[in-house]
Amino acid sequence: MDVAAVTAVAPDAPLEKTTIRRRETGAEDVLIEIDYAGICHSDIHLARGEWGRTVYPVTPGHEIIGIVREVGSDVTRHKVGDRVGVGCLVGACHECPSCEAGQEQECERGSVATYGSPLPEGHPEGHVTQGGYSTHIVVEERMVVSVPEGLDPAAAAPLLCAGITMYSPLRQWNVGPGSKVAVIGMGGLGHVGVQLAVAMGAEVTVLSQTTSKRDDSLKFGAVEHYATAGDEGKENLRALRGSFDVILNTVSANLPLDRYLATLKPRGAMVEIGIPSEPMSLRAGSVTGGRKILTGSMIGGIPETQEMLDFCAEHGITAQIELISADKINEAYDRVVDSDVRYRFVIDAKTF
Amino acid sequence: MDVAAVTAVAPDAPLEKTTIRRRETGAEDVLIEIDYAGICHSDIHLARGEWGRTVYPVTPGHEIIGIVREVGSDVTRHKVGDRVGVGCLVGACHECPSCEAGQEQECERGSVATYGSPLPEGHPEGHVTQGGYSTHIVVEERMVVSVPEGLDPAAAAPLLCAGITMYSPLRQWNVGPGSKVAVIGMGGLGHVGVQLAVAMGAEVTVLSQTTSKRDDSLKFGAVEHYATAGDEGKENLRALRGSFDVILNTVSANLPLDRYLATLKPRGAMVEIGIPSEPMSLRAGSVTGGRKILTGSMIGGIPETQEMLDFCAEHGITAQIELISADKINEAYDRVVDSDVRYRFVIDAKTF
Repeated sequence: MDVAAVTAVAPDAPLEKTTIRRRETGAEDVLIEIDYAGICHSDIHLARGEWGRTVYPVTPGHEIIGIVREVGSDVTRHKVGDRVGVGCLVGACHECPSCEAGQEQECERGSVATYGSPLPEGHPEGHVTQGGYSTHIVVEERMVVSVPEGLDPAAAAPLLCAGITMYSPLRQWNVGPGSKVAVIGMGGLGHVGVQLAVAMGAEVTVLSQTTSKRDDSLKFGAVEHYATAGDEGKENLRALRGSFDVILNTVSANLPLDRYLATLKPRGAMVEIGIPSEPMSLRAGSVTGGRKILTGSMIGGIPETQEMLDFCAEHGITAQIELISADKINEAYDRVVDSDVRYRFVIDAKTF
Repeated sequence: MDVAAVTAVAPDAPLEKTTIRRRETGAEDVLIEIDYAGICHSDIHLARGEWGRTVYPVTPGHEIIGIVREVGSDVTRHKVGDRVGVGCLVGACHECPSCEAGQEQECERGSVATYGSPLPEGHPEGHVTQGGYSTHIVVEERMVVSVPEGLDPAAAAPLLCAGITMYSPLRQWNVGPGSKVAVIGMGGLGHVGVQLAVAMGAEVTVLSQTTSKRDDSLKFGAVEHYATAGDEGKENLRALRGSFDVILNTVSANLPLDRYLATLKPRGAMVEIGIPSEPMSLRAGSVTGGRKILTGSMIGGIPETQEMLDFCAEHGITAQIELISADKINEAYDRVVDSDVRYRFVIDAKTF
């Protein structure tokens, strides 16, 4: 079927309203009528060709909430009328050790991203997968999660990427009551991460360039919010030495890692989530003394995404969003780049 | 008491035979008559002032094996005549969470190194602690370990530093049957690490600049030994992508970390043990994809050092050593710097 969409056509051109083709609903597929699609910074990187491998035209969007309108003959997990979500992945081999462990994002044969992943020659949807800035999408049922009652569907959309991206490392590093967690960067990822860590029982500190978002940090449950820029920031980090069990770094600029690693307790872990384009630098002594850990995380698997949504429903966690119509996407992109959004844009799919 | 020793007097001067003072055996102390003292590369760094903070004169040596000759009135763990060992630490607060967890090397009030640690004003032993290149040493009993029967005492000396340095991260990262472990660098640390990992049941691969020590690697139980230098090395590392659960990096030169991190399986850990003087560099993507871990380790605590010695006795593991007399120390230092020893020098303390 042909459906309305907003699509990137060239690195330096604005996104355009257009029509894209969705495949027929296969035996294991569900057809979803999209209600809301979040805007993630990754959408912008890909749409603008900043990762150097964009195949145009491509429809971004991997924070998708909608209603099942059609199911294939073998579908068992979802039924027509269900509210469902699709995140960053729409395919995986389902057979390798990573997939069997529910870590489809690490599929050893390569998982399929919701947009921009190569499709086989002659595929009805074109050269690459097409994402959620669209009225409908067809996805294999195993890659589709259920959206629990009680979650506002628009504000839940960003959980499909920002939520799982923060939830997975918090679980991986055993954050719970008594944990001291720092979140670096108070943006789309950070503001969800603070809420999740607080709901897990952790004492959460926000580390942000300035104190401009301090009130929000405290509103989301953080106990403190420190500025990290300039001499004041240096002093703040010095005073925080040995404080944290886990640091989630959502910032994709290069930070002085040694200074942040020093704020970990012995055996603490700093998790890179943002990906700076330049290599990072650190002294070996920053990890040998105290056996500290520098690691990273990238989204999460489907079972954990479902677990995260259920956790968010239980604890009343959603993103704080600004709902926009499709004709505001280009403007929203500029505002995301300028960090001028608190904290995530979501597009009303009725306006595509 | 005044005892014979070999001491560093200046950064650029050879070590000299001299006499140093040991404190009286206190209520919680044991007096050890030293039989063997290993030479560690750290001794050389400190003796030659390469860490920029050496207080001279200083007697190196933190791989000490000897016999208890006198015990203080409150000593319960050791008795006169026992064969004992002293490693890198001779003091800690014994009260902080790290000490209570048996991780005295991470003592939050600062552990006391066997040589070169500042002593209180007016201490009978001088300005800094004096190490094991000496006929006797007085150490508080809690920092002294028992050397099990059956371990050759000369060849066991290096276990007190090299052994625990490799054993601790292998345990920390749960190496056991089925684990795939790589050891980077086949020297004093590496050749002990290979034996320990093999005895734990791991499949061990040695990564060394050249294949010159390949026969030794296989003798110590490794299944493979690959060269890492030049184009051949690059090709070898490429072929090893996704192979290892744990990598122990004993090399203190700056390696191309991204290439090594790529040889880890998802969730694998690379442990820095050597400390390069320049900052290390890596791409964030090397840890985010597959949630890989870059961490470090530095020696280990007293309970784990005892556990390591018992493990070595059970599995017949010692260092491969070249036993020298005290008058060969300066020559041995030059040979260590030139990597011209297989694999560790040990000094016969009778010759001090």
